[in-house]
Amino acid sequence: MLKVVIIGSGNVAQHLIKAFQKSENVILVQAYARNPKSLYHLLDKDIVTDDYNNLAEADVYILSVSDDAITTVSEQLPFNNRFVVHTSGSASLQSLDDRNKRGVFYPLQTFSKNKEVDFNSIPICLDSETESDYKLLEGLAKSISPLTYSIDSRQRQALHIAAVFANNFTNYMYTIGDNICTENNIPFDILKPLIQETANKINTLTPAEAQTGPAKRNDISTIERHLDFIKDENQRAIYTLLTKSIQAQNG
Amino acid sequence: MLKVVIIGSGNVAQHLIKAFQKSENVILVQAYARNPKSLYHLLDKDIVTDDYNNLAEADVYILSVSDDAITTVSEQLPFNNRFVVHTSGSASLQSLDDRNKRGVFYPLQTFSKNKEVDFNSIPICLDSETESDYKLLEGLAKSISPLTYSIDSRQRQALHIAAVFANNFTNYMYTIGDNICTENNIPFDILKPLIQETANKINTLTPAEAQTGPAKRNDISTIERHLDFIKDENQRAIYTLLTKSIQAQNG
Repeated sequence: MLKVVIIGSGNVAQHLIKAFQKSENVILVQAYARNPKSLYHLLDKDIVTDDYNNLAEADVYILSVSDDAITTVSEQLPFNNRFVVHTSGSASLQSLDDRNKRGVFYPLQTFSKNKEVDFNSIPICLDSETESDYKLLEGLAKSISPLTYSIDSRQRQALHIAAVFANNFTNYMYTIGDNICTENNIPFDILKPLIQETANKINTLTPAEAQTGPAKRNDISTIERHLDFIKDENQRAIYTLLTKSIQAQNG
Repeated sequence: MLKVVIIGSGNVAQHLIKAFQKSENVILVQAYARNPKSLYHLLDKDIVTDDYNNLAEADVYILSVSDDAITTVSEQLPFNNRFVVHTSGSASLQSLDDRNKRGVFYPLQTFSKNKEVDFNSIPICLDSETESDYKLLEGLAKSISPLTYSIDSRQRQALHIAAVFANNFTNYMYTIGDNICTENNIPFDILKPLIQETANKINTLTPAEAQTGPAKRNDISTIERHLDFIKDENQRAIYTLLTKSIQAQNG
């Protein structure tokens, strides 16, 4: 059995707490929260602390705090030579204080407060300084998801950027679609099946193969009609840049 | 029973043929194809023609041809006063020759040749010149999908643009994610659950509510690190423009 302490009480921390509670190979021995009450709906009061000096003994300490806080919090831990990992897609392994053994446990998913997630389909990106630390981390990850990947700091940086495109910017494309619908008295619901199918398609085709639309077809007259229709400067700039980029890929 | 003739043999035409074949309220009396053989895998030879002069009597003629061909084909039809509709998201109702009654039957989905679609979840956008034509068209649409919408030419133009953002540009965001993964020896599979969840989220949240990421958080140091990492000029231009746009929405 792996003993785990989670430090943090945000979205990711809470989802991890729930996932480890369901796992048979992990004991969540304690959680740290600046405001312990924020975790009372999930955990017994006795195992929530707001004092680093009370931290229990564990195999892994998972720092699930904001990127900016990783260094400070890791420096405040009152022990050495234990295994401390963060959960950030963006911070380097080196942002953790080196008095302890360091690692990364980064679940690649978008977490919302009120939406349950199924960890079984969440890839967990792992990094560590030694092979034996990696084995331990892999065991921990496998206890909540079969999808574990060894991803070093540079790859994690790349992956985080790739995720900004595939998640944040994609969602922003939905927002623009929603805005255009609203301005023209069209229910946004009408676009939802298309959005779903767009996401489904890449399970059987590469995104490059799945590309369709006027830019891909080099359908200049449709592109011109669209640009003529779009009055919003921002939407027009985005339409123009993405159309040019797709056309450039056509070769 | 509604009698339908489909003119065209492309992707949309073939998906419509299959959908109408399953419907109990529609008889597909004939299909026109320049190359009749292209439909023999779906239809009995006897009901495929390549001669407009052989077109059978029907309640609705569905022109499922490329946007550029709509006017020419509608002008070649050797009859008047029948009901002729096209399936384009982009062409106006007026692009059909006015010797016949005109309408639009636009299924809003992305169709791939080798991927079955479930018409039950495909919104069909309808337009016509008269109320009675609309009723007929609505009956036809309801025979294959419960999701029918009255969408006029201007709305359809807007919807087509919204779909370019929500489908074509979204897919292009996936392509960039894929490219960044490949360049860094990361399997693209790792992003697929995130992509799926991004699409699922908007079933319970508006896209504006679902927005996350460094631009939304105004996390300047992460944005700067990302821009520092991205070497590809095109990716950098897109990252910059979309980040600025999301930030502008914050304020």
